[in-house]
Amino acid sequence: MLNLTLKTNRSWGSWAASHLDEILVDHVHCEKKAAGTAMNFLFRYPHIRLLQEPLAALAREELEHFEIVLKELDRKKIDFVPQKPSPYGQKVHRVIRDEEPAKLRDTLLCCAVIEARSCERLSLLSDVLEDLGLRELYKELLAAEARHHRIYVELAREISSAGFEDRLLEICSHESNVISRAQNLPRLHSGAGFMNS
Amino acid sequence: MLNLTLKTNRSWGSWAASHLDEILVDHVHCEKKAAGTAMNFLFRYPHIRLLQEPLAALAREELEHFEIVLKELDRKKIDFVPQKPSPYGQKVHRVIRDEEPAKLRDTLLCCAVIEARSCERLSLLSDVLEDLGLRELYKELLAAEARHHRIYVELAREISSAGFEDRLLEICSHESNVISRAQNLPRLHSGAGFMNS
Repeated sequence: MLNLTLKTNRSWGSWAASHLDEILVDHVHCEKKAAGTAMNFLFRYPHIRLLQEPLAALAREELEHFEIVLKELDRKKIDFVPQKPSPYGQKVHRVIRDEEPAKLRDTLLCCAVIEARSCERLSLLSDVLEDLGLRELYKELLAAEARHHRIYVELAREISSAGFEDRLLEICSHESNVISRAQNLPRLHSGAGFMNS
Repeated sequence: MLNLTLKTNRSWGSWAASHLDEILVDHVHCEKKAAGTAMNFLFRYPHIRLLQEPLAALAREELEHFEIVLKELDRKKIDFVPQKPSPYGQKVHRVIRDEEPAKLRDTLLCCAVIEARSCERLSLLSDVLEDLGLRELYKELLAAEARHHRIYVELAREISSAGFEDRLLEICSHESNVISRAQNLPRLHSGAGFMNS
């Protein structure tokens, strides 16, 4: 359902849980970036009406998650510090073509697959969390990520349905390549060594 | 309470109501820009903790207003088209100094005074609207703008209270200058000819 062509090994969850403080800080940054990305569509494509409400609502939800995970940091007395970002997102976006409407559809599909990966990772992490409050919270958040994945996929299909399934698969394969070569920094989108092959 | 040093003449309301379609489109763009501006603080100042939650929540609320006013456009069968933006916001921001923390405090105060002006204008417009549904909606929205004004003022004060009242007054005077010289395009922040002197 999440369209990932390469799955993360379950062992990623325990590894991430053993670096929970850093993962939580990364998560806050990721929620903010996700909100920014959704909002960027509104500024870049004000003339494409079908994007406006769904992506405004999605940006609102990511902002709310940003606030919620920030509160978790406070609860755990973790400082919200700047962090070296994972180059994952930027590398996934390299697959985007220059001409429209391919550019817009590709960008939406990149967002879709990034949401799918976040959802998969939050799921693996929540499975092993001992903090039951955080586990419950993560289950809610990952359900939202799955919903965002579907919203991005459907918007991309509405932009252009020509060759849609093939392009979705290409972008998913590209993402799998990127994440399987990613560094093992404690980040939601860290990679190498944890991918099933 | 709104800290405006120059008030708009009540006649602006009737003039704006006679260009309601264009004003509504401008309003949608303004709500989106306000959301973008609030979110920019989160990206520029991730290390300033006191900004994070209030401005994330404020950005969410502006996005919700964006969606609500967009729905009004639909209801009135007005297209959401690109528009030549009023140079008002850009000109207000020219007062911002380069060095920190003056830069951040000035930027917050510019946002505060822009929210105050939007609130004043929405109030004048709602007073003369014949569409009672829209009038009620505008009363709700302008209450939010007034709240946002206070949030920005208080955040600015928390950043630095030294010489605070003087700087607030300077920025309000600057804004009055800008808006009294603005063109009379049908925009929320149009100006000349409608300012009390």
